[in-house]
Amino acid sequence: MQATIITIGDEILIGQIVDTNSVSIARQLNAAGIVVHEKCSIGDSREEIIEAVRRAELTSQVVILTGGLGPTKDDITKKTLAELFHSEMRFDEAVAAHVERMLAERGIAFNALNRSQAEVPVCCTVLHNAHGTAPGMWFEEEGRVVISLPGVPFEMEHLMQEEVMPRLKRRFALRQIVHRTLITAGMAESILAETIEAWEDALPPYLKLAYLPAPGIVRLRLSAYEVEGVEVSAEIDRQFAVLKQLIPDFVVGFETATVEEQVHHLLVERGATLAVAESCTGGKIASKFTAMAGASAYLLAGVVAYANEAKTAILGVDAALIRRHGAVSEEVARAMAEGVRRLTGADYAVSTTGIAGPSGGTAEKPVGTVWFALATPTETIAVKHACGTDRGQVIDRATAYAIRLLRDGLQRK
Amino acid sequence: MQATIITIGDEILIGQIVDTNSVSIARQLNAAGIVVHEKCSIGDSREEIIEAVRRAELTSQVVILTGGLGPTKDDITKKTLAELFHSEMRFDEAVAAHVERMLAERGIAFNALNRSQAEVPVCCTVLHNAHGTAPGMWFEEEGRVVISLPGVPFEMEHLMQEEVMPRLKRRFALRQIVHRTLITAGMAESILAETIEAWEDALPPYLKLAYLPAPGIVRLRLSAYEVEGVEVSAEIDRQFAVLKQLIPDFVVGFETATVEEQVHHLLVERGATLAVAESCTGGKIASKFTAMAGASAYLLAGVVAYANEAKTAILGVDAALIRRHGAVSEEVARAMAEGVRRLTGADYAVSTTGIAGPSGGTAEKPVGTVWFALATPTETIAVKHACGTDRGQVIDRATAYAIRLLRDGLQRK
Repeated sequence: MQATIITIGDEILIGQIVDTNSVSIARQLNAAGIVVHEKCSIGDSREEIIEAVRRAELTSQVVILTGGLGPTKDDITKKTLAELFHSEMRFDEAVAAHVERMLAERGIAFNALNRSQAEVPVCCTVLHNAHGTAPGMWFEEEGRVVISLPGVPFEMEHLMQEEVMPRLKRRFALRQIVHRTLITAGMAESILAETIEAWEDALPPYLKLAYLPAPGIVRLRLSAYEVEGVEVSAEIDRQFAVLKQLIPDFVVGFETATVEEQVHHLLVERGATLAVAESCTGGKIASKFTAMAGASAYLLAGVVAYANEAKTAILGVDAALIRRHGAVSEEVARAMAEGVRRLTGADYAVSTTGIAGPSGGTAEKPVGTVWFALATPTETIAVKHACGTDRGQVIDRATAYAIRLLRDGLQRK
Repeated sequence: MQATIITIGDEILIGQIVDTNSVSIARQLNAAGIVVHEKCSIGDSREEIIEAVRRAELTSQVVILTGGLGPTKDDITKKTLAELFHSEMRFDEAVAAHVERMLAERGIAFNALNRSQAEVPVCCTVLHNAHGTAPGMWFEEEGRVVISLPGVPFEMEHLMQEEVMPRLKRRFALRQIVHRTLITAGMAESILAETIEAWEDALPPYLKLAYLPAPGIVRLRLSAYEVEGVEVSAEIDRQFAVLKQLIPDFVVGFETATVEEQVHHLLVERGATLAVAESCTGGKIASKFTAMAGASAYLLAGVVAYANEAKTAILGVDAALIRRHGAVSEEVARAMAEGVRRLTGADYAVSTTGIAGPSGGTAEKPVGTVWFALATPTETIAVKHACGTDRGQVIDRATAYAIRLLRDGLQRK
């Protein structure tokens, strides 16, 4: 069964916001066995909404719209849908009471604009929005379902999970969609494709392979649409097992696996501890680890030693060393890693010192030059990398590189 | 003049990636005066690509596609466009030489898959992709332009800026689109709309107002399409000046203004310095500042004191204080802020200590409890906030709160 997702709002068409609503809706529909045929984004315009819904109905039994349900004049989705389904509006007492209660909790008076949020087309089923003031709406017409949801992400999310998905599962007999992803790192896409060509050609016809390249990694996804999920999952397991034997050194993990997760598991397994000394990455390495639950088991501390004085005062880097070699140097990277390791008593310590830009580059050390060091119980190693030219890119690449350096160090032991 | 953006890739329709390409393309088209009529995302399917391009041509003189140009079998955009425009393929020597050179720099051999990347439809103009191996393509048919770009974001970005936009500006006589946004904080959308209703009703008809609510803020955008930009900008300045008088205490700034930018400017203006001591935010506060060019002017250091030992050893927090009050306490937050201020000699220091979860909460201090302290040249203040229940949410909210605390402290002086 097919679905179309329509996101409504001029802010999407002018690039003022990133549409993450359709990502979440697509995931939930796929997980329930509904194929997303198309996603489209249109403006807050009566004609465009009507045309998009009519067009979607040609291919899709389910049409989900988000956005345009706010209390202000620029939001016109509700009245346009009422027109499309030739429906009068009615005042819904339950919605009104809910909106009034929500506003009261925040100390806000119920005004005419809020009152208009309780008006709904007669022909729709109201979907209760427990976390917001704009109700969801469910329309049915000739066996097809058109669902309108607010554009505020967490309101949309709750409505999808609590109202829309349970109703879709009851309303339609759904089959299954299976997506599984294997993540590779360190192999260029074309070489990878060449290496696994025979494996790819021998895949069963119902498994579709996709390559998803990103800096440093290529994800390989196998997808099967509207199948018996258990059997297909077992077949994918078998196929991925064969693939791992073909490229054993390049497989990072499955689904959304990241290198920081590999480090996390390695440290937890061994009961080893970590400290971080960052200059140009400015806290990003530490924040990658602390974003994971359980990081407190191994992460003792991070130091963002941005100023040279901080490198000296906190990490004990010899000021003369900085004067002699510059802050962006092998010697300072080593001293930072060893310094934070000594300061915290951690087993492993990683450091970065580089030029993130846009200014600060020289002919000898251009923007993007970053020195990394890894201090372990047995040795300290240092490496230099050119991490690009754009500040954000330099910070992200240097962060990724530092985490890989740490992973490789842990895997060697 | 109107454009349609078509992003191609099953990974978009299954929700595996967030489409940021269309956001960037939409921004650039708007900035050049081209109205984005619709964005749509479709699968790697011959039929869907042909149908989407034909449909887009009905409304748009410019159609931009991204994705599906990789060297592997799942990428079919190029051959589909060749079919659509009834064009043979030819081998482009210049593209081949460029691909070979790029691969050689990374130590990768040029294989049959790479060779296929140098094949292009005879009827298109090749757009040089300096940062990748898949060339962009420019097709013209009956006064309309169809442009195909790779889906890798930074390759697409360079091609848009260096090849596509200059050509579009030469090819078409473009008018102007003006979007301006004023950011409010602390006022509910319905109350805001009621308060400014008379102002809204008196806007000139060519200015379109949109409300964009998000947690804690409402952005108000005025847009004018295909107008004389200079005059319209002046009119928007006048309108926003009137608006600021209506709600003087609720205006944060304009466009993408953030609170960390406010802090950045306040610190730079005064020549004051900053240090950060983070526990539960784990480096995120420091990384918000270091993401901005010029942060080295004021940010001396950050300490991610995740373990209690780090709080004591690096920040000099009395171990007895932690034992007596717990790490998540007013006393420890104060000692952390004062400690990092003393350690670095910074004028201002902010600290966080809290329970990010999912474990570690107690009845008295549930997950989400965060203590904040701000140490200034004259005083130290501490506050507690409940920052939610989800680990990522707690980290993000606590980061935002700490930065607001700092901003308020700077504005008081």
